[in-house]
Amino acid sequence: MRFKVPEVTVGRLSLYLRCLNELEEEGIEVVSSSELGRRCGVNPAQIRKDLAYFGEFGTRGVGYYVKELKGDIKRVMGLHKTWEVALVGLGNLGTALLRYKGFQQHGFRLSVAFDVDLKGKNVPEGCKLYHASEMEHVIREKGIKIAIITVHHSQAQEVAEKLAKAGVKGILNFAPTRIRLPNKVVIRNVDMGTELEILTFYLSIKGTR
Amino acid sequence: MRFKVPEVTVGRLSLYLRCLNELEEEGIEVVSSSELGRRCGVNPAQIRKDLAYFGEFGTRGVGYYVKELKGDIKRVMGLHKTWEVALVGLGNLGTALLRYKGFQQHGFRLSVAFDVDLKGKNVPEGCKLYHASEMEHVIREKGIKIAIITVHHSQAQEVAEKLAKAGVKGILNFAPTRIRLPNKVVIRNVDMGTELEILTFYLSIKGTR
Repeated sequence: MRFKVPEVTVGRLSLYLRCLNELEEEGIEVVSSSELGRRCGVNPAQIRKDLAYFGEFGTRGVGYYVKELKGDIKRVMGLHKTWEVALVGLGNLGTALLRYKGFQQHGFRLSVAFDVDLKGKNVPEGCKLYHASEMEHVIREKGIKIAIITVHHSQAQEVAEKLAKAGVKGILNFAPTRIRLPNKVVIRNVDMGTELEILTFYLSIKGTR
Repeated sequence: MRFKVPEVTVGRLSLYLRCLNELEEEGIEVVSSSELGRRCGVNPAQIRKDLAYFGEFGTRGVGYYVKELKGDIKRVMGLHKTWEVALVGLGNLGTALLRYKGFQQHGFRLSVAFDVDLKGKNVPEGCKLYHASEMEHVIREKGIKIAIITVHHSQAQEVAEKLAKAGVKGILNFAPTRIRLPNKVVIRNVDMGTELEILTFYLSIKGTR
């Protein structure tokens, strides 16, 4: 890739993918950038700009071939294969995420889960539950590259370091603390508090309060 | 506000706030933009650019007064007061979010929760549980402006419309479906699948797979 791709662009690629899926389900084979824009709620010029990071897409005066563009975006995002994902921490949030339909829809498979206390914990079909002490061993053996952390915030950093040592390259962290690791591991800290704050910012601009 | 503020800037404001909180807890009164940058993992020039949307902050050659900047950002984000928040849908995810420490840390109070089935549901202290049929009435009476939706995706749009009618101005939607409402309501769709996709994008660039 020649340029650094902004994170917002990557987020929008994910959105385009979702819209293209919808179009495909409706049996639509070709879509103009203005129609795709309308569906995604994104300016058509923005769509063209986002896609331009990755090459030339679409045909002038015709639009985009839905199936083709979908395949291209999936390749760009590394989604042409299914990723196995490990989840660490089976509290309420971890349990909820294991059952979250959105992950499967996106081609992820939460195949292993870990907790320090297995009593009363259960996981959906297709997922295997292990004690936390087996984490590094299982992850290394299965070659899992992505993990979701939903442990208590006081444990998050330690868990992340162990995961990295076992070969994990990408971590989605839901613990309300910032994890720091060497650059070779990609970390996304999902802070729900931040999501609410962004909401209040826009409400404040609008003078709701 | 004179300019449209990019959403990434708003997200970073939230991050700056968190770093300023840390500094305050450590008893640090003044911070340079380079030190603040190091802590937040953001380029100092970017920090200055982000803050410039809202006015002039900091003193040349000195830096930022921690307490002052914190107060300013809170005001900009509408966080100088506590917001009451309603949660709709007490499945695993809803239950997890009710107990999520991050919201309180950010000055939000999840004070009411609704579900169609109250059997076996319980909520933490300070939160009151109601049947979904009382939702519009309770929200209107309490003047609640923010709601979190964690219902099944087939119900999300309908719930959102009811909330908007009852006076809610901002919605955080965790159901894996896009909610559409008139512009006067601000909606943030939190799609955990997207979060994982952004991760795989960066892993793919790095050649992890």
